[in-house]
Amino acid sequence: MISGEIVEVITIKELVALGNKVKGKIVFFNIVMNPTYIGTFNAYGESGIGRRSGAAEAARYGAIGVMVRSLASNADDYPHTGVMSYNDSFPKIPAVAISTNNANAISAKIKNGKVVKVFFKNNCTMLAPVQSYNVIGEIRGSEKPQEIITVGGHLDSWDLAEGAQDDGAGCVQSIEIIRAFKKAGIQPKRTIRAVMFMNEENGSGGADAYLENAKLKKEQHIFALESDAGGFTPRGFTLDMKEEARNKVNDWIQLFKNYSVYDFSIGGSGSDIDDLKTIGAGLAGLRPDSQRYFDLHHASTDVFESVSKRELDLGALNMAAFVWLVSEHGL
Amino acid sequence: MISGEIVEVITIKELVALGNKVKGKIVFFNIVMNPTYIGTFNAYGESGIGRRSGAAEAARYGAIGVMVRSLASNADDYPHTGVMSYNDSFPKIPAVAISTNNANAISAKIKNGKVVKVFFKNNCTMLAPVQSYNVIGEIRGSEKPQEIITVGGHLDSWDLAEGAQDDGAGCVQSIEIIRAFKKAGIQPKRTIRAVMFMNEENGSGGADAYLENAKLKKEQHIFALESDAGGFTPRGFTLDMKEEARNKVNDWIQLFKNYSVYDFSIGGSGSDIDDLKTIGAGLAGLRPDSQRYFDLHHASTDVFESVSKRELDLGALNMAAFVWLVSEHGL
Repeated sequence: MISGEIVEVITIKELVALGNKVKGKIVFFNIVMNPTYIGTFNAYGESGIGRRSGAAEAARYGAIGVMVRSLASNADDYPHTGVMSYNDSFPKIPAVAISTNNANAISAKIKNGKVVKVFFKNNCTMLAPVQSYNVIGEIRGSEKPQEIITVGGHLDSWDLAEGAQDDGAGCVQSIEIIRAFKKAGIQPKRTIRAVMFMNEENGSGGADAYLENAKLKKEQHIFALESDAGGFTPRGFTLDMKEEARNKVNDWIQLFKNYSVYDFSIGGSGSDIDDLKTIGAGLAGLRPDSQRYFDLHHASTDVFESVSKRELDLGALNMAAFVWLVSEHGL
Repeated sequence: MISGEIVEVITIKELVALGNKVKGKIVFFNIVMNPTYIGTFNAYGESGIGRRSGAAEAARYGAIGVMVRSLASNADDYPHTGVMSYNDSFPKIPAVAISTNNANAISAKIKNGKVVKVFFKNNCTMLAPVQSYNVIGEIRGSEKPQEIITVGGHLDSWDLAEGAQDDGAGCVQSIEIIRAFKKAGIQPKRTIRAVMFMNEENGSGGADAYLENAKLKKEQHIFALESDAGGFTPRGFTLDMKEEARNKVNDWIQLFKNYSVYDFSIGGSGSDIDDLKTIGAGLAGLRPDSQRYFDLHHASTDVFESVSKRELDLGALNMAAFVWLVSEHGL
């Protein structure tokens, strides 16, 4: 347990300016996700620095702990957790996430000139790795089975909830594509493989193993698609592929407008498949409506009931269409 | 209270074919909303006939009551209510909505060859009208105050819930437009009027009164915009206006893409403003993402907590942009 006075900062720069004034205190990173961005992932990326490296930076100046405003886009009472890292040159001070409502309440007290003291006890510890597995199912291609299309999500989630949106949704959608092809009796020309990656949230061990195995077997990966942004209404896809492949995809965009899917843009795909580009795969990421994703992300509210079957199905439908086009026409 | 054997039908045609065989029985309209439509309003329109005129049709053949599968796009335990009408030539038999889960359960029993009997008691009655009011606020235009832009939603809701999405959302968004203009110090050239219409769900008395008053005062209504499809992420607008006006709007579409709003199509606007076209107004309706609307529509689950502030705000933002363009450039 630690206890001490809180010092609130809203940027890392502010922490640096305070320097040794935070010694013996608890630094409160109250970095608000910018609500004016239309896409919430932009705000998440920008405001995440407090959670990701706040403890490492505060320890540099002698702080005894950090409290981080949750990276949540809503006003709620739930802490939202997530990955963070320490700097080995400084003490590994305890770090906790607090809800946006609590962050606002504490900040109001401080702004009123009050000296706010807190104590907290943190039982988190990093356990040794254990053996776990990716789960894979595939339909072999009828004409070019050696050309592999991967479609996936990740099996693991943060421990405080079910991880229904992050990333149960992506797993179910990937399975659904295989199921739908079989049910419809569609035999793809190229191999379609649904992969539920293990350990995305904590080091991408499953992604590494998948890539390593692909290299070992000299597999030919032509395309990979990940759904790891929630099971909300699909709005588009991000593309991370060579210009020639992108031109091919551009010819297909019109087809997706029937499903009210419009946004095809250059951008990162998904962390489980990202390194497959090193062996030549073109990549894409499903981009669902992002408005409510960070209401639930890494919080105990990310449960089965938060997923709309229709929205989930629509995502799977669009993923299946994309996968089918590549399986028919290559990339 | 009535009790009797259930006869299940999935179309009105099926009821007509059964004819007098339903005499003394309870007709169960188990018309499923077609899940394959991308837009749920299409399914709602198509499947709504059981609720709207099922009781009138069943009474024609001597049925003693009807049970209607709720017009819900999800599997839930809540009855979803809504408007229906009788045929004065036949008895006004009682009609109740049952949840989609219950409809499935009863249908399964019947399909198993079981004779299913039910009883139900219905306390509904049509009360005499009472005086109520539209609520209106406006900013007078600086250059052409006589040219009126109406933006609205409706104040009333079905009695079993708060009506947060239908149509608290549209009311709040309309107020928000006025608030935002005032807060930002923007003085529109034309008059912008936010109208919370009364009595949309049960006869459109508020809409009628608003139109009548406009005629009486010889007001010049150039544009009206309604939000009555929920406070979900905005996807576009339907347009109901002359070609010349539509061409003007088409020049603005590009501006909305910055907010990920793409779908501008010809279509109905909203029942509160629809008749304003008889006095020359161009009309538009906000078209939010429709995937979850009928999960909540006219059910006890349509509560404040079902609304996402971000999604609601984004809708208001796009409505404000549309209203501002018309206030600056006319229509």
